[in-house]
Amino acid sequence: MTEQLARLNRLPLRDDLRGLTPYGAPQLDVPILLNVNENTHGLPVSVREAIAASVEQAVAGLNRYPDREFTELRERLAAYLGHGLTAENIWAGNGSNEVLQQILQAFGGPGRTAMSFPPTYSMYPLLASGTGTRYVTGTRDSDFGLTAEAAAEQVRAQAPNIVFLCTPNNPTGTALSLDVIEAVYDAGAASQAIVIVDEAYGEFFHAGTPSALQLLPGRERLIVSRTMSKAFALAGARVGYLAAAPEVTDALRLVRLPYHLSAITQATANAALEHADALLANVEAIKVQRDRIVSELLALGLKPAASDANFVFFGGLENPRAVWEGLLEAGVLVRDVGIPGHLRVTAGTEPETGAFLARLRELLAGGVR
Amino acid sequence: MTEQLARLNRLPLRDDLRGLTPYGAPQLDVPILLNVNENTHGLPVSVREAIAASVEQAVAGLNRYPDREFTELRERLAAYLGHGLTAENIWAGNGSNEVLQQILQAFGGPGRTAMSFPPTYSMYPLLASGTGTRYVTGTRDSDFGLTAEAAAEQVRAQAPNIVFLCTPNNPTGTALSLDVIEAVYDAGAASQAIVIVDEAYGEFFHAGTPSALQLLPGRERLIVSRTMSKAFALAGARVGYLAAAPEVTDALRLVRLPYHLSAITQATANAALEHADALLANVEAIKVQRDRIVSELLALGLKPAASDANFVFFGGLENPRAVWEGLLEAGVLVRDVGIPGHLRVTAGTEPETGAFLARLRELLAGGVR
Repeated sequence: MTEQLARLNRLPLRDDLRGLTPYGAPQLDVPILLNVNENTHGLPVSVREAIAASVEQAVAGLNRYPDREFTELRERLAAYLGHGLTAENIWAGNGSNEVLQQILQAFGGPGRTAMSFPPTYSMYPLLASGTGTRYVTGTRDSDFGLTAEAAAEQVRAQAPNIVFLCTPNNPTGTALSLDVIEAVYDAGAASQAIVIVDEAYGEFFHAGTPSALQLLPGRERLIVSRTMSKAFALAGARVGYLAAAPEVTDALRLVRLPYHLSAITQATANAALEHADALLANVEAIKVQRDRIVSELLALGLKPAASDANFVFFGGLENPRAVWEGLLEAGVLVRDVGIPGHLRVTAGTEPETGAFLARLRELLAGGVR
Repeated sequence: MTEQLARLNRLPLRDDLRGLTPYGAPQLDVPILLNVNENTHGLPVSVREAIAASVEQAVAGLNRYPDREFTELRERLAAYLGHGLTAENIWAGNGSNEVLQQILQAFGGPGRTAMSFPPTYSMYPLLASGTGTRYVTGTRDSDFGLTAEAAAEQVRAQAPNIVFLCTPNNPTGTALSLDVIEAVYDAGAASQAIVIVDEAYGEFFHAGTPSALQLLPGRERLIVSRTMSKAFALAGARVGYLAAAPEVTDALRLVRLPYHLSAITQATANAALEHADALLANVEAIKVQRDRIVSELLALGLKPAASDANFVFFGGLENPRAVWEGLLEAGVLVRDVGIPGHLRVTAGTEPETGAFLARLRELLAGGVR
């Protein structure tokens, strides 16, 4: 590998890529995978059959390019989101990362700046770098919270072209109230900032927490991005999407690669949306496990952040690496996101969550903390 | 639409995107589609069944992220290409456009230059623009040919960071001999140029025309890109790939979006490769139709370029728009690639090719030329 690295360094790689290593959580084969916030419940058999049947139909025409406008998929996504949205408001890509990359290609790039409030989704700086966009960061309060006033003030000061607001935030799980989003949008008026509200985990909001989708009318610089990877249990299918003003989707048509969504991806997503009720049936069960983790960790004297997502970020650890390893020894993989004293765990099924909590209890009792 | 365009212009779009329209051939619904160089033979039923079965298996694990390294697919692609290549030499993406975009992200970008020899694949300048790469062009001789000497001289003069060589070339169908590629590679040594040989139509080379794959050993700046869209009849599945030195694929790992190839795309491509013989069975039939088009167009007094692809580019027209429309009236869609006096037609099935030629003969006899 060292020789291969030497060969890589002799290639005319861009200077800003030199010395980097590829993004990605370790892919280990253990029984309980709670490290990348997948939906561990899996797909109901009825939905699996529906997807297979839909794909089988699409395969017959696979020698032809797919519908470049993925019209049926945009219609179905609009109907799913509600809020009076239509296909004109919808855009989709191979995972929300591709959708975010397209936004940066259209509105960011050389000479422009993107801003976020870390700790947040670690792909934002990589997407900025990959599109030549300068990346600046704001700060959160000590509990990873963000008030409307503090956020707006920082946006006014930095005058970015693009702002990322992740809610529920990854890796902390914390949600933003809509007044924060409104304040950032207004503060971004001076720099004509595109405000991206990343609601990848939006279906896991506590009951009553509103989505930024309701802020879209009259705000043509606001974009709400979503994914089918989490609530829809389709991480393997790579379908991300967004809702925004129709002119935003027109802008993305200028930078998307032609036919970027395969006929098979479209067929898969269409079938999943047709069976959304069955697929989303596990969301409530996951929220129960998420809340269970928070309350049990509190009882164990740890410091879980309030979570509106399908995972829990928790502090109060002295040696997170030892805890991570102790969990792994018992076949439970969680995520060390590189924040001192903290780990992140996905809310799995009831038995998976139980196994995680039991092993953690054991480790704490044994002095590993 | 005018109002929507006005709204688009009020968005903070990048300056270099203002006034552009999205790339893409018109998608019209007519009986004989010979406009985008698809494989019109379709997929054998046995292969359709194999793909459907492979996807059905993948659907069961769709709640999990896919294999980020698509190892089985890389192994199968290496075995298909031969030439002593292994999985370490292979990279793939959602269509060869994505693969080319990744190459530009790794080796191009702001401050760097990509070069091609028009007329050639019209996505190259768009991919350069989308990655902030400066785009320069060389020239071909009057028959759209390119000699080793002329190509090397132009590469030395421009000193680009990336060179695109499309062979068989789109839209002309003409092939480059390997000495041109070697000369360009050597001429690019001074600027450490990455040389991309785009063999999207490589399976349609006349018998005996060698692939640039045989030039790979010892040339770490050489990349040969391919696609499953054409010979494999999988345009709808969006699978492009490349062969290169292992360190090139390592460079692409630094810019690829994580999990960019879905589990379903991998399952589809794996099944297709397992049945490559059945899928590729129509390649010879298509070459027969391609050669038939060339000889019949010559007999009609038109000027077809020598073609090694699954399409024919032909000149000698006074009013290509009228010919295009006359063909469309008879349900035959061909491509006007915007080169004066020329059109491009895909070699279809025997009856499709016959319908195209019959209608063209009719138009010429009626004075439409």
